[in-house]
Amino acid sequence: MFAHTKRLQYTVRVSQPNPGLANLMLEQFGGPQGELAAACRYFTQALSEDDPGRKDMLFDIATEELSHLEVIGNIVVMLNKGAKGRLAEGVDQEGELYRKITGAGNDSHITQVLYGAGAPLTNSAGVPWTSAYIDTIGEPTADLRSNIAAEARAKIVYERLINLTDDPGVKEALGFLMTREIAHQKSFEKALYTIAPNFPPGKMPGDPRFTSVYFNMSQGGADMLGPWNDGPEWQRVDERDAQVAVDGGDGSASVQVQQDDADQLDRMATRTMSDTSVDPVTGAEMGMAPEGDAAAKAPLA
Amino acid sequence: MFAHTKRLQYTVRVSQPNPGLANLMLEQFGGPQGELAAACRYFTQALSEDDPGRKDMLFDIATEELSHLEVIGNIVVMLNKGAKGRLAEGVDQEGELYRKITGAGNDSHITQVLYGAGAPLTNSAGVPWTSAYIDTIGEPTADLRSNIAAEARAKIVYERLINLTDDPGVKEALGFLMTREIAHQKSFEKALYTIAPNFPPGKMPGDPRFTSVYFNMSQGGADMLGPWNDGPEWQRVDERDAQVAVDGGDGSASVQVQQDDADQLDRMATRTMSDTSVDPVTGAEMGMAPEGDAAAKAPLA
Amino acid sequence: MFAHTKRLQYTVRVSQPNPGLANLMLEQFGGPQGELAAACRYFTQALSEDDPGRKDMLFDIATEELSHLEVIGNIVVMLNKGAKGRLAEGVDQEGELYRKITGAGNDSHITQVLYGAGAPLTNSAGVPWTSAYIDTIGEPTADLRSNIAAEARAKIVYERLINLTDDPGVKEALGFLMTREIAHQKSFEKALYTIAPNFPPGKMPGDPRFTSVYFNMSQGGADMLGPWNDGPEWQRVDERDAQVAVDGGDGSASVQVQQDDADQLDRMATRTMSDTSVDPVTGAEMGMAPEGDAAAKAPLA
Amino acid sequence: MFAHTKRLQYTVRVSQPNPGLANLMLEQFGGPQGELAAACRYFTQALSEDDPGRKDMLFDIATEELSHLEVIGNIVVMLNKGAKGRLAEGVDQEGELYRKITGAGNDSHITQVLYGAGAPLTNSAGVPWTSAYIDTIGEPTADLRSNIAAEARAKIVYERLINLTDDPGVKEALGFLMTREIAHQKSFEKALYTIAPNFPPGKMPGDPRFTSVYFNMSQGGADMLGPWNDGPEWQRVDERDAQVAVDGGDGSASVQVQQDDADQLDRMATRTMSDTSVDPVTGAEMGMAPEGDAAAKAPLA
Amino acid sequence: MFAHTKRLQYTVRVSQPNPGLANLMLEQFGGPQGELAAACRYFTQALSEDDPGRKDMLFDIATEELSHLEVIGNIVVMLNKGAKGRLAEGVDQEGELYRKITGAGNDSHITQVLYGAGAPLTNSAGVPWTSAYIDTIGEPTADLRSNIAAEARAKIVYERLINLTDDPGVKEALGFLMTREIAHQKSFEKALYTIAPNFPPGKMPGDPRFTSVYFNMSQGGADMLGPWNDGPEWQRVDERDAQVAVDGGDGSASVQVQQDDADQLDRMATRTMSDTSVDPVTGAEMGMAPEGDAAAKAPLA
Amino acid sequence: MFAHTKRLQYTVRVSQPNPGLANLMLEQFGGPQGELAAACRYFTQALSEDDPGRKDMLFDIATEELSHLEVIGNIVVMLNKGAKGRLAEGVDQEGELYRKITGAGNDSHITQVLYGAGAPLTNSAGVPWTSAYIDTIGEPTADLRSNIAAEARAKIVYERLINLTDDPGVKEALGFLMTREIAHQKSFEKALYTIAPNFPPGKMPGDPRFTSVYFNMSQGGADMLGPWNDGPEWQRVDERDAQVAVDGGDGSASVQVQQDDADQLDRMATRTMSDTSVDPVTGAEMGMAPEGDAAAKAPLA
Repeated sequence: MFAHTKRLQYTVRVSQPNPGLANLMLEQFGGPQGELAAACRYFTQALSEDDPGRKDMLFDIATEELSHLEVIGNIVVMLNKGAKGRLAEGVDQEGELYRKITGAGNDSHITQVLYGAGAPLTNSAGVPWTSAYIDTIGEPTADLRSNIAAEARAKIVYERLINLTDDPGVKEALGFLMTREIAHQKSFEKALYTIAPNFPPGKMPGDPRFTSVYFNMSQGGADMLGPWNDGPEWQRVDERDAQVAVDGGDGSASVQVQQDDADQLDRMATRTMSDTSVDPVTGAEMGMAPEGDAAAKAPLA
Repeated sequence: MFAHTKRLQYTVRVSQPNPGLANLMLEQFGGPQGELAAACRYFTQALSEDDPGRKDMLFDIATEELSHLEVIGNIVVMLNKGAKGRLAEGVDQEGELYRKITGAGNDSHITQVLYGAGAPLTNSAGVPWTSAYIDTIGEPTADLRSNIAAEARAKIVYERLINLTDDPGVKEALGFLMTREIAHQKSFEKALYTIAPNFPPGKMPGDPRFTSVYFNMSQGGADMLGPWNDGPEWQRVDERDAQVAVDGGDGSASVQVQQDDADQLDRMATRTMSDTSVDPVTGAEMGMAPEGDAAAKAPLA
Repeated sequence: MFAHTKRLQYTVRVSQPNPGLANLMLEQFGGPQGELAAACRYFTQALSEDDPGRKDMLFDIATEELSHLEVIGNIVVMLNKGAKGRLAEGVDQEGELYRKITGAGNDSHITQVLYGAGAPLTNSAGVPWTSAYIDTIGEPTADLRSNIAAEARAKIVYERLINLTDDPGVKEALGFLMTREIAHQKSFEKALYTIAPNFPPGKMPGDPRFTSVYFNMSQGGADMLGPWNDGPEWQRVDERDAQVAVDGGDGSASVQVQQDDADQLDRMATRTMSDTSVDPVTGAEMGMAPEGDAAAKAPLA
Repeated sequence: MFAHTKRLQYTVRVSQPNPGLANLMLEQFGGPQGELAAACRYFTQALSEDDPGRKDMLFDIATEELSHLEVIGNIVVMLNKGAKGRLAEGVDQEGELYRKITGAGNDSHITQVLYGAGAPLTNSAGVPWTSAYIDTIGEPTADLRSNIAAEARAKIVYERLINLTDDPGVKEALGFLMTREIAHQKSFEKALYTIAPNFPPGKMPGDPRFTSVYFNMSQGGADMLGPWNDGPEWQRVDERDAQVAVDGGDGSASVQVQQDDADQLDRMATRTMSDTSVDPVTGAEMGMAPEGDAAAKAPLA
Repeated sequence: MFAHTKRLQYTVRVSQPNPGLANLMLEQFGGPQGELAAACRYFTQALSEDDPGRKDMLFDIATEELSHLEVIGNIVVMLNKGAKGRLAEGVDQEGELYRKITGAGNDSHITQVLYGAGAPLTNSAGVPWTSAYIDTIGEPTADLRSNIAAEARAKIVYERLINLTDDPGVKEALGFLMTREIAHQKSFEKALYTIAPNFPPGKMPGDPRFTSVYFNMSQGGADMLGPWNDGPEWQRVDERDAQVAVDGGDGSASVQVQQDDADQLDRMATRTMSDTSVDPVTGAEMGMAPEGDAAAKAPLA
Repeated sequence: MFAHTKRLQYTVRVSQPNPGLANLMLEQFGGPQGELAAACRYFTQALSEDDPGRKDMLFDIATEELSHLEVIGNIVVMLNKGAKGRLAEGVDQEGELYRKITGAGNDSHITQVLYGAGAPLTNSAGVPWTSAYIDTIGEPTADLRSNIAAEARAKIVYERLINLTDDPGVKEALGFLMTREIAHQKSFEKALYTIAPNFPPGKMPGDPRFTSVYFNMSQGGADMLGPWNDGPEWQRVDERDAQVAVDGGDGSASVQVQQDDADQLDRMATRTMSDTSVDPVTGAEMGMAPEGDAAAKAPLA
C-alpha cells in the first residue's frame, strides 16, 4: 500500500514563472525517460518479482520515483503559475495573453490551453505518455539491464535540462533528481551481478556456430576494427556470399501447403498475374501534360 | 546506401501453415523487442554517431537486423500461407473459413482479414509498431547500455517463442536469430567499455550528498538487505522523516509571481473556492434510491 | 512524498491460476477506466490545485488509487502464476504450453510471451495505456465532473468483471475495489457542490440566445419528448431552415486575404481546376474487364 | 442516415489569416475535448441505446456536434488561407515563407507543410486524434455522467480560446459553440435524472462496510476537512495501520498452483536467485573513472 | 450543416447474435479502412477544397460514408445484442457468461467488458481508431489518388468480411457497402482525370536526370523484367557502383559548423572516444558462467 | 538479405546548421509520408507477394527507400550539428543555449533535448512514427493503388520542403528524393495496369443496382455537376426519400435474440428507463447561481 506525506522529497524554489521552461521540464514528467515511466517500470517488475530482495528494492525505487514525479510536477506547476489565473479569468486585453502563450518559441500553448497551466502527462512536444515506453518483460537478467539503461538515459536528459536553465532553484532540484538516477543505476548493477551467471540472459544458450561471429554488413570504405569485432574471440565474416544463407541452405523460404489451399493460391496468382509482355498505358501517362505544357512548369531549384 | 540480395541470411523451412503461431511470431516482427525496433534503434544511432568505429559497428548491426526482419517476416508469411488464397478467392463454404480464422484461440483473424495473411508491422496483439519503442538519445554511454538491454530482452522473447513451437524449421531459424542477439550484446558491451570512464554516463557528476544514499521507501515487513542497499558504500535512510525534504528545506514548492498575475490567481481562487462550512445536497444523493429500493438491489457476491 | 508499506490495502486470495481471467482483469490495471488512469487523473489535478481542501482530498484519493493499482496488479500476477515458470524454464513438451497460452480464447498469449506472465500496463486487448485517457484540464468545476464520471465508469467495469468470475477471492477483492469507486464518487460530488455557483462551469456565461435552444437534428420518425428537450425551459427548433445559419447570416465561411496571397490562390485554382466539360477516360475504366469477362466474376452473395 | 446542407449552422467571418491562431483552434477540431470527440461519443452511444427517448436525443446532439465540427473546421481553414496558395505554388523567395511558417511561435508549420494549410484531425500540438478519447461504456447511468463532464470540459476550452483571440468574427462563432455545450450539458443532466435511481451507477450495490469510509492517505501537514470527508455520513480512517489490509487479512497476495507449475517456479527462482552474500564488482564500477579523473568532471551547478 | 433521419440507408436484418462476428465487423467501423476513416478523409478534404465541383462531391461522399458508418455500427450492435442484458444485469451463473465472452476464439471480450456490448471505434483487435489513418494533404492531384486507393482497400476488406459470414442479412448489407466503394472509386477517378495535367502531382517537375531511372537494388537471383523497369522509357542501373552517389559526389554528408560549435563537438568526441587499443573486460563477461556451468544449460532445440 | 555501403545514394552538402529546418525535414524521415513509411510499405508487400516480377520490383524500391531514409536522416543530422556538442558538453552560459533551442519558432527543442540533436523517427511535430501509417492489405490491385497514392503524397511534401529552404545543397538533395517518387509512381502504375482486369479491385463484382448510383447527399445550394456524378453512366439520386432504405425495407436494424437474452434486455431497459413524465431537478440546476449572481458574470465577448 502507498501512503503520502504532504511535503516533497526535495524543496522546490522557482524564481519566476516561465512557461517555455515548464514545457521542457515535461520531458521528465510525462516523457519516455521521465519519472512516470521509471515508477511504472519498477512497480510492474516489483509486482511479479518472486525474489524477496529484488522485490523490496524495486518497491523502494518505484516509490522514490513516484516522489520524484511529484517534485518535477511541482516544478512544472510553479513555472506555469504566471498565466494560470489570467487564462482562467479571461481579463487579458489586446492579445497580450495570445502573445504570451504562443510567442515563447515553444509548445507551452498546449500546456496552457488544453491543460489549464497544469502538469499534463505528456512529453515536451505534447505527445501523451504511453506504456509502450516501458520494456519490462519479466526476466530479471533482462529487466535489470533495462533498468540500468533507463537510469543512464534519464541521467542524461536531466543533465541537458540543467544546462538549459539559469534558475538556481530549478537547477538545484534537477541536480538532486539527476543524482538519484546515478544511485539507482548503482543499485540495479549490484542486483544484476548478484545473479550468477547472468549472461547470456535467460536460460537457453546460444548456438555455438553463431555466438562469436561478426558479420561485416556495412562496407565500401575503411572498415573499422575494435574489440567488438576483432580479436581472438571473434570470427569476422567479410565476404558477402558467406553472409547469406549461413545455415548452408539456399536462403529461400518455404512451407508445405495442403492441396486445396494450393489450388486457391493458384487461382489468386492467376487472377492477379502481371502480364509483362505488354507495356500498358497507365493512369499516370494519361495524366501527363503534352510535351509543350511540361516546359511551362517551374524549373527545379 | 543499402543493397538487397534475394536470398535470406538464414533459410526458412516451415512444416505447415499455422496462423496462430504466425501471430505469436509477429512479436519479433512488429513488436517492441522485435527486429524493426532493433534495426531502427541502431540505424538512428549510426546516423548521428561521430566516432568512426562505433558508427561502422552500428551500421553493421542495423543492416543485419534488417536482414533478420526479413527472416522473421518470411516465417510469418509461410505460416499464414494456408488461408491466403482461400480468403482472397472466397470459395469457402459453410463457415469453414470463419472457424479457421477465429477458432485458433488467438488474434490471427486480424492478420488474415485486415492484412490479407501478410506480415503486418504489429505485435502479436495487433498493436501497430511505434517508434516510441526506440530509446536512442544520442549519448553513447547511455545508448550502448540501452542496446545491451534491448538485445537481452530480444533474446528472451526468442527463447519463449522457441519454447512455444514444435516445428523444427521454425525452431532452427528462431535459434539463429536468438543467438545473434547474444553476439550483438557482446559487441555492444565491448563498445561501452572501450569508453573510459563511462560511469556515470554523460559529463556531469552527481551531487556527492546523494550518490550513495539508499532510501528505504517500502517498509512494514522484513526489509531485505543486499549489495544494492547495504555495505560500506551505501548510506541507508530508513527514517521516514529523514526521507522528506532531504535538502533541509520545508518540502514545499514555491514561485514568485508578479502582482497582476497574483491578482488573477486570487480571482480564480475566489471563484472556485470550496465552501466547506455547508454540506450541500449533491447530484449523487438526488440519484439515490429511497431506502426501501436499495434493498431490492442484488446483494454483493 | 510517497511511502510504501509491504502489505496490500486488501488481501488477495486467488483459488487457482487462470491466464484468461488475468487478461480480463488488465482492463482495470492498464485500461482506460483502470486504476493507473484514476491515480494519474487525481495526482495531476492535486499538483495544480490551489484550494487546500480539494488538494488534500485529491492526494488522498490518488494515493488510494495507487494502492488499488497494486491490489489489481497482484490479482493479475497471481492468476498468471501457473505458466510463469514453465514459460521461463522451457520444459514444456508436445505443444502443451502453446495450447495453454493460445487455447484459452483470449489474449493471454500477449501477457505470457511479451511480458513473461507479469502485469503489463495494457488493457485486456493488449493496447498500451496512454495518458490520452486522462481528461484533467485544470478547472475544478469541469475536473470534478470528470472525476464523478470516471468513478461511475470504473464502478461499472468492476461490476462486469465480478459477473465474469467464480473465484470467491477474486470476487471479494473486486467487490472492495468497486465499492471504493462509489465512495470516491460521493466525495467528488460533495467537492463539486461546495463550489457555488458551479454551473455553467468556468467563468463565462453562455449567449442567452442559445442556452435553452434544442435543435431537433434527427427526424424522420416519431420524435421523442423528454425533459431534456421539452417544457417551459426549452425552445425547440424543428424546422430545418431554422437550424441553419442561426446567427442570421448566410451560413458561409469567409476571410479577407491580402492581394498577393489571393494571387497565389488563383494560381493554385487554375492549376488544379476540374474541367467538367469533358468526360475523361480514367484509370479505372482502363482497368475494367471487357463486357464478356465481367460475367466470369463470381456473383454477389 | 445523415444528410448535409451546404450552409453552416453558424456563419464564419474571419478578419484575416492567422496560422498560429488556426493551430490553437485545432484543439476543438481534432483535440480530446473537440467536436469530433463529441460527435463520436454521442453517436456510438446512440447506436447501442435501447431507450427511444435517449436514443433520439443522442442522435440529435451527435448530429449537431458534427455540424459544429464543420464550423470550427471552417474557422481553421479560413485562418490558414493566407499561406495556402503560396505554399502550393512555391513562388516564395528569400526564405519569407519559411519565416512565416516557423516564426509564429507555434506549431503551424505542421498544419502547413504536412496538411497543406488544411484542417487536420489533430490537437494543437499536432497529435493525431484517437478514439481513446471516447469513454462510452454502454451503461446510461455512467455514460450520461461522462457526457455531462465532457460538455463541461469543452465549454472551458472554448472559453480559453475566446480569451485568446481578438478577431470579432472568430470570437462570435466560438461563443455560439461554447454556449451550445452549456445547452447540451443541461439536456444530459435532465436525461440522467429521469433515470431513478441512478446512484450508484449500474446495478450492483456497494459493500456497506466501505461505501462511507474515507481513507486519509495523505498526511504530514494540516489535514483539511470538508463535506467530502467529514460529517455524520463519513467514517474517516486516519491511522496508517487501519488503512492496510482492511479486510482483516494479512495484506498478502496468494494463489494455489499445481505441483508441476510450482516445480518450474522453483527452477526459475534458483536460476535467477540473488546471492546477497557477496558484493560483486559491477559494470558501473568498471566504468568509473579513477579517483583523480572524477575531480576533472564539471562541478554541479 | 448535417441533418439526420431516423432510418438507415440500408436495412439491417441480422439472423442471430454472434459477438465473434461483431468483432470482425469492427474492422470497417473503427478500423483503418473503415467508414469513420472514409468519412473523416473526405470531410477534411471538402473543408479546404476551393474547387466548387470537387467540394460538393467530397461533401456528398463524406455524408454517405457517415451513413455507412451508421449501417455497419448497427450490424455490430445487433450481433452483440445477445450478451448485452446478461452482462449488465449480472444474472449469469456457473461461469457461462465467461465462457461465452472468452470462448469464441476472438476478441469479443473487449467489446463486451469494456464497451458493454456496444460499437466502439476500434478495429477488430481493439486498437483505438486514430486520425493517423487519414492521409489528406491538401493537394487534389495527390488526395484524389489517396481516395482511389482508400476505396480500393475498403472494397477488399468488405469482400473478405462477406466471405466470412453465412448470415444472409449481414451478407446483403455488406454487399451494398462494398458496392458503394466501387461507385465512389469511379467518382474519384473522374475527378482526378478532369484535372489536366495531373502527373506528376503538384507543380514542380522532376529532375530529368532521375525521372526514368530504375535502380535494380535487389539482386542475387534472376532479375525480373516488366514494363515497370524495362523498355525504351526506362534507364536501368544494375551496377552497384553506379547506384551510389548518383550526383557524382563522394556520397558523404557534410556541414560547415562555426568554430565554437566545432570545439564543443571535439570535446564530446574526446570524452566519448572508443579506445580500440584495449580489449576491456565487459559486464557480459563478468556475468558469464564458468566453463563447467555452461554445460548445465539446456541444449538448443 | 540487406547489405550496406558506407556511401550515400546522393551526396549531402549542408551550408550551415539550422535546427528549425532540421525539424521540418523530419516530416520525410519519421512522418507519415516519409521514407521509413515508404520502405516499410513496400518491404511488407514484397514479403507476401507471390508474383515474382512484382516481388522483385517491391524489394528494389523498398531498398531504395531505405537508402533515401539514410539521405534524409543525414540532412537532419547535419542541420542539427551546431548545438550537438554544446548540449552534450554543457558549456553554455547565460541562457544562450535555451534561446537557441526554444527561440527558433519550431519544435527543435524536442530533437535537441530528448534525442540529443540526432534524427528521431518522429514527424516534424515530434509525434512518434507508427505503422498505422502503412496501408498494405495484401491484395495487389489495392496495394498498387495505395503505392501510387503514397508516392504522390510524398512528392508533394518534398515539393513543399524545397520551397521552404534556401540552402542549395539541401534543395538539391531534396530535389533528387522528390524526383525518385515520380519514378516510383511510374513503376507502380505500370505494375497495376499489367494486371487485367484490375477494376473493381479484388474478385467480387459489385451489386449492379448500386455501382452507378450517385447519392446527392449535400444539398441546399447550387449542386455542381461533373463527370463524377453526371452523364449517361450515372444514375443520380437527389430526392432525400430515395436515399433512405435503398433496399426497399424500412431502414431499421433488427436481430432475433433468444428468450432468456431478451428477458435480460428487458430487465436492463426497466432499470435504466427514462421517466419522461417528470421534470427532475438536476445537478446543473443545483449548481446554478441565483438570478442575481448570474448578472455578475462577464458578458460574452
